[in-house]
This record gives sequence, structure tokens and C-alpha cells, in this order.
Amino acid sequence: MKKIPHRVYLTEEQMPKQWYNLRADMKDLPDPLLNPGTGRPITEEELYPVFCEKLAHQELDNTTRYIDIPEEVQDFYKMYRPSPLIRAYNLEKYLDTPAKIYYKFEGNNTSGSHKLNSAVAQAYYAKEQGLKGLTTETGAGQWGTALAEACSFYHLPLIVYMVKCSYEQKPFRKSVIHTFDAEIVPSPSETTEIGRKILAENPGTSGSLGCAISEAVEKAVSTDGYKYVLGSVLNQVLLHQSIIGLESKTAMELLDEYPDVVVGCAGGGSNLGGLISPFMQDKLTGKADPRIVAVEPASCPSLTRGKYAYDFCDTGKVTPLARMYTLGCDFIPSANHAGGLRYHGMSPILSKLYHDGYMEAISVEQTKVFEAATMFAKQETILPAPESAHAIYGAVQEALKCKESGEAKTILFGLTGTGYFDMYAYQSYMDGTMKDYIPTDAELEKSFARLPKIPGIQE
Amino acid sequence: MKKIPHRVYLTEEQMPKQWYNLRADMKDLPDPLLNPGTGRPITEEELYPVFCEKLAHQELDNTTRYIDIPEEVQDFYKMYRPSPLIRAYNLEKYLDTPAKIYYKFEGNNTSGSHKLNSAVAQAYYAKEQGLKGLTTETGAGQWGTALAEACSFYHLPLIVYMVKCSYEQKPFRKSVIHTFDAEIVPSPSETTEIGRKILAENPGTSGSLGCAISEAVEKAVSTDGYKYVLGSVLNQVLLHQSIIGLESKTAMELLDEYPDVVVGCAGGGSNLGGLISPFMQDKLTGKADPRIVAVEPASCPSLTRGKYAYDFCDTGKVTPLARMYTLGCDFIPSANHAGGLRYHGMSPILSKLYHDGYMEAISVEQTKVFEAATMFAKQETILPAPESAHAIYGAVQEALKCKESGEAKTILFGLTGTGYFDMYAYQSYMDGTMKDYIPTDAELEKSFARLPKIPGIQE
Repeated sequence: MKKIPHRVYLTEEQMPKQWYNLRADMKDLPDPLLNPGTGRPITEEELYPVFCEKLAHQELDNTTRYIDIPEEVQDFYKMYRPSPLIRAYNLEKYLDTPAKIYYKFEGNNTSGSHKLNSAVAQAYYAKEQGLKGLTTETGAGQWGTALAEACSFYHLPLIVYMVKCSYEQKPFRKSVIHTFDAEIVPSPSETTEIGRKILAENPGTSGSLGCAISEAVEKAVSTDGYKYVLGSVLNQVLLHQSIIGLESKTAMELLDEYPDVVVGCAGGGSNLGGLISPFMQDKLTGKADPRIVAVEPASCPSLTRGKYAYDFCDTGKVTPLARMYTLGCDFIPSANHAGGLRYHGMSPILSKLYHDGYMEAISVEQTKVFEAATMFAKQETILPAPESAHAIYGAVQEALKCKESGEAKTILFGLTGTGYFDMYAYQSYMDGTMKDYIPTDAELEKSFARLPKIPGIQE
Repeated sequence: MKKIPHRVYLTEEQMPKQWYNLRADMKDLPDPLLNPGTGRPITEEELYPVFCEKLAHQELDNTTRYIDIPEEVQDFYKMYRPSPLIRAYNLEKYLDTPAKIYYKFEGNNTSGSHKLNSAVAQAYYAKEQGLKGLTTETGAGQWGTALAEACSFYHLPLIVYMVKCSYEQKPFRKSVIHTFDAEIVPSPSETTEIGRKILAENPGTSGSLGCAISEAVEKAVSTDGYKYVLGSVLNQVLLHQSIIGLESKTAMELLDEYPDVVVGCAGGGSNLGGLISPFMQDKLTGKADPRIVAVEPASCPSLTRGKYAYDFCDTGKVTPLARMYTLGCDFIPSANHAGGLRYHGMSPILSKLYHDGYMEAISVEQTKVFEAATMFAKQETILPAPESAHAIYGAVQEALKCKESGEAKTILFGLTGTGYFDMYAYQSYMDGTMKDYIPTDAELEKSFARLPKIPGIQE
């Protein structure tokens, strides 16, 4: 029997030179983004006030299957990629499962997560277009760190709106972002009109990704030479993150392996969409039929309890309308520790695939997530981010099913990042003070009732 | 011209199966450890009350050149190794130097440093001997984290004495160590006789590695079935850490490269001794003649300003006497942020090599270290630990010399770890509140005057 190594790293020659655009293989495309003013599909030009041109093009490009990764971005990738594909031998042994468990670990860079993959691309295109600066939001802080790293490298000023509860829970995240010269504003803030409005309506709010997006967009649109960038949800982000899945698939091919099931955590969908992309391609084109499982927090369950509807991507209702699984853009999730998953919506691409039955989804309470996280840390020596630990939980469930059935399935999951800045959360889990929050049906119904009305499309 | 990749990872087959014992190639050996009671060279048996047997043997073994790495330790290594050898293309470009700069990056594991390499070995041998538990000390917290990971994996209880200033500066380090089930005591503490004595003499002391070692040794000796382990200074630790240098040398050979100069940070010597080992072998055996440069903090300059003398390894004077470069075991360094380098002495092996002219050493103030650290983070995207940034500073100096002379030298340095738990320090550097401390000659003379007297050896 062929001995499978613990870790596989591709060589530079084996690393992807192109991103893969999943939309090119979807027979049924996601519904188009709508201009909230006209209710009509948005055009590339209409996106220019917010996004830089190349990214606006990628956002609406449903047909180009493979898109060249610019040389400069490839060179940046080589500073921290390839990320390893790891065989979780010790986890398998601990669970006493016949399953083979692999994980793609994206945490070995200073941003601590996969977010750098899209940050580099977006900062590069912004620089190429001659922009004066960028704005963005960050939840857990990983996207903010990643973008700060990328902007620092390309000498682009950056303003980061950081969700207030993360800003307060993670003082050291701020310092890391400062080290890379970015400005940080806790959101909601007094620096934007929408921030002031949200604060007036909810004075004690701990913020949400949806609020922070509104503020960052307003800031970009109102600042000369600035554009806005986003770390998840968007089609362009899933495109850039396809590098995770492409590397994973190549590495598994080197081992003569193919996953029976692919598991990822789901917030806005950036990691999940990237990880599954080439496997979903196989599914869409009939080459293979792996199961795809999204794991989301029970406190913010957009896929498992949301509505598939047109909604704003932000709380302030300034973005285009996207058809996606959503809890309603007014929904402010409880202060769950997986800040990166506290988002009311879900990538339109993933939403469509889920709606059409290509994907499954489960939700899990945070105490169970931290139980999986600490167990994993002790077995595999990596301290995972709370977001990533959702995927661990999902993979463990699959492995335990195999134990019961005796099947030696091959499981691949995405370990998106590390938890070094989440120690408050770990401490509260260990102290027994961590609580689980699950929104009631009434809360969700109230939020759904406020979904936007679009004449002729969504009444 | 052959294109050199950004990163080289060895395959599992290429990974070292044996550690390299530098002493076997030293014509002039370090002076022997002395039993402080008798003033005579200590025997293996005399070490048994403190160390487990296999480690006591390794400590005194001056002749076995290569020592097999136990299979179980190799398997653990495979969970987080090989570490990458990275070509610092962007740093070179930024410095505009003709030099080629490589670094061996040991930070991509949850301990955040190279410390795990010896922690695994020591925990494994302790488990093999059937011990009930271990005690240790930690300065910056990297060793404590590493040993907690290893002990958790082998189900061995662990008590960590953490230098008080680190305990206070790094609350999240504690949480990480807790996650791996170890007990943490801020040192000096009331839990040991020596701790109580030190507190009585210096009530406001922020502690030091020397104090914490004394407490951990006392606790081990006075607890049934417990032994003590140390993360640096000792010969056994340099032996385990030789994996850093062995991997580096193999990776450089794959690139047809060989360093003209090897640079490492120096506290107790664990990383430096490991990194340089195969290159020093070449030097000792006449095969090659690379320069070896140690970089230490100006606040704790054992090589550059210390005395080469017999001294205790701890502040409480309970350990054997080692001949080494020392500032005196009573010397308590200022609260420098590179906690891992705040040690009064230096590995006896490295001390001897330095004394005999095989190594150079420089010292540097911490503000300059953080200047190098932030510059490096922006160029190479890795946020370094303050300890590691000493090596960056040294490598940059070498690269700038090349810029002046026009020589395209090959520089290798050890990037021992990441700075995610050092954000207080980074923040104080960015705020401009960071201060440099350099001990006065009078302070050092006072400390030297208290070096132990050993009849017939050191009067």
C-alpha cells in the first residue's frame, strides 16, 4: 500500500496559474445583481463607482471559465503559498474511524486565514488602476489583516471598518492591522451618515458585517480616488479563492485520492466557494459526485433557516440587491465568537447551488464548535479559528458516520485559519461561561417581513 | 540561470531521521558541567533526580555523532514539519542588495516557534520512562506552549512557571497553554521555597528565566514522579534543534546553494545552536568556512559583554554549574520585549565555539529590532516574534554590507517564530513609547563579582 505523507505541498510549477470561474459551468446561473434604484440587472459601468474596473468585470463575468492570475499576484502568492494539504492521521486515530480525513490548511500566513488570497488580487487590481486608496470592513479581523498586508505591499492607503464587538474582543488584531499601516474605525461609527443612523436607532449595538459594509461603501464612494473591496460573498472573491480548491484537487490527485465529501464553514461563502469549486465543477459536468457540506453557526443560519430572496448585501441598503439565502439585511446576529460567520446573507453562487440541490448545509452551536476546536488542537497541534472549527465539527460528524457504517470514505475539509486572536473566546469556552444563541422563528419572521419589495420580481 | 523558488519544503523522505550532535566534531569540548556540591564533573546518575534518563544521557554524550530520532517523534514532526526554507526576494529588492537572503521559518506551528522540536522529544522520552508529569519554565511563552502541546499529545501533566512580566504582557499565551491542559504559575511565585526567597528579596521583581528555572526544578524534584525539562541552553536541546540546520542544509543543497554567513538570534542558544549545527560541522572539519553571527539584545548581552566563566543556569543556584558566557546568575535583565532572550547565560556549546573564535556576536537595542521587524513584515508578509527579529536585524546588516561592497553573498538566517502574542510590544514600538535598556558596566561588574567560587577551578 502506498504510504500517504502527512503533508503535501505543491511545487511552484504545480501551483495554479489561473483561477477557476464556477459560473462558467453552471447551467442555471445565479439570478443577476439588481440595481436597487431601477430594479434592473446591474451593469459593469454601474459598479464602477464602488469597485475598480477589472473587479467589476470579474463580478459579472459568467462565461470565462479560467482567468489568468496576474504575474504579480502569482509572485505574492508564492510568498505564502502553496498551503499544505494535510492528512489528519491523529484525528482519525482519536475518532477511531475508517474514514480518511484530509484538510487544506490556509492559516499559515500572517493574516491567519485564506483571506489573503483575494486581498492580494483586489489590492493589485486597485493599484493597477491607479486608485488612491481602499475601504473595507472586517468581522473577525482576518480580512482586515489580509487586506492591510496586501495594501501595505502595494503602498495603497486603507481604511478598515471593524465590527465593534470584534474591535473590542480582539485588541491585538487592531495592532496587527496598524503594523501594516491601515486605519481602523470601529463600526458602527460617527464617521459616516449610515453609521450615525444605525447608532441612533440601536445605540448599544455591537455592530455586524452588514453595518460595516454600509459604512465602508459610503466612505469609498464619498472619498476621491477610493474604491471599496469586500472579502466574501461576491463572485469575484469566490473566483480568487478557487485557488484553495484547485491546489487541494491537484494535491489529492498526486495521492491518487478524491473526496467523497467536502466540508467547509460558511459565513459569506469565500472559503467554501473556493474550496469546493473544482469538485463542484466535476459535479456540474457529471465527472464525479462528491457530497458538499456547508457548516454554519446556529446563531446566524442563513442557509439552513434563511429565505432564498433578493436582499441588500448590507444593513444600510446601499449595495446592489443579490438573490441569496438571507436572514434579512436588518438581522443583527448575536455576539457569536465566530465573527467571520456573522453575516446575514450568503454568496449568490453558493445560494443558487444550494437551492438547486448541489449542496447540503448544517448549523451548529458555538459550544459544540469549541469542543471540536480544542479536541482538534490536541490531536493535530493546530489551534483553529472559531470559524474554521465549524468545518472541523462537520468533518468529525462525517467521520463518525463512517465509524458507524464501517465505510472508509475520503473526507476533505477546509481549515481556513488559526485562532491566536480568539483567545477570549477559547477562555470563555474553558471557563464554561460561553453561551449558545439561536434566533427564534419569530425573530426571523420579523426580519423576513422587511425584505425589500421589488416590483414584478419580489412583491 | 536556474530559477530558485520562493519556498523549499523537503519531502518526508528527505527529512532528517537522525539528530546531529555537534560535540562529536569539536576537537575542544565545552568544559564539563560541575556538581555544585562537589565541584566535580557531574555524572549521568547525578542528573537523574532532575532529568529523565535518556535525556541525561544525551546531555553528557560528547561522542555519538548522529542519534536516531525515535519513530514516534518523527511522526509528530511530520504533523508540522518540514518547515520551509524561504528566499526573501522582496526583502532583497527592498534593501536593493546583491546578496541572496534565505530564511528558515520555524513559526508555522501553534507554539509559534522552533521550540516544539525539542518539546516533542523531551515529552516523548518522559512518557517512555513512565513519568507522572513534567515541570518547566517559559519566558516569552513559546516554550511553554510548545511543551503543553507535546505533553497534551502524550497525556502527560505539565506545570509551567511563566516569567511574571510575560505572564502579564501576554494574557492570551496563558489561554493557549490552558487549551492544552497545562497548569501555569507566574514566577517568582509563593509555590516554591526559592520563589518565596526571591520575592522577599525583590518584592517588585518582574521575574526572569533564571528565577523560573529555579522554581520549576524545585517543583520537579519535590513532586513524586515528576522531572524537569528545559527549552534551551542544554546540550540535549541543541541536539534536538539540529533538525533546523539539517533541514536547512539539505534544502540549500537542493538549490545548489551554501551560505557565506549564517545569522541567528541568541538567548539561551536553542535556535542558534540548531540552525548552525551542520554548517559549524563543516567549519570544524574544514569542509567549508561560513561566518556564523549571533545577534543578542543589548539589554541582555551575554556573549558580547558577559564573562566566560562557571555559573549556575538559574537564579536560585540549584542547577549544575556550566562554563558559559554569563552576565551572572543574579543578573535580572530589564523587561525587554524579547522575553525569550532574557537569559543571563548561553549554551555551553555555543559559548565554547564563540570563545574559540568560530562565531561572531553582535548586540542590538529593541527599538532597532522592532524597526527591522515591521519592515520585514511589510516586505515578506510574516509578522516576526521580537526574538526572531534580532536575526532579521543581523541579516539586514549583512545584506547592507553586501550592497556597499557589491558582493553577492548568500545569507541564511533563522526566523524562529511569529509575533501574534507580542502585540503589546509592537504597539509600544508604534506609539513611540518603547524604551531601550542597556546595562551599565558597573551593573555588570557588580553581577560578575558574585559569580560562584569553585576551589581550584574558579577562585
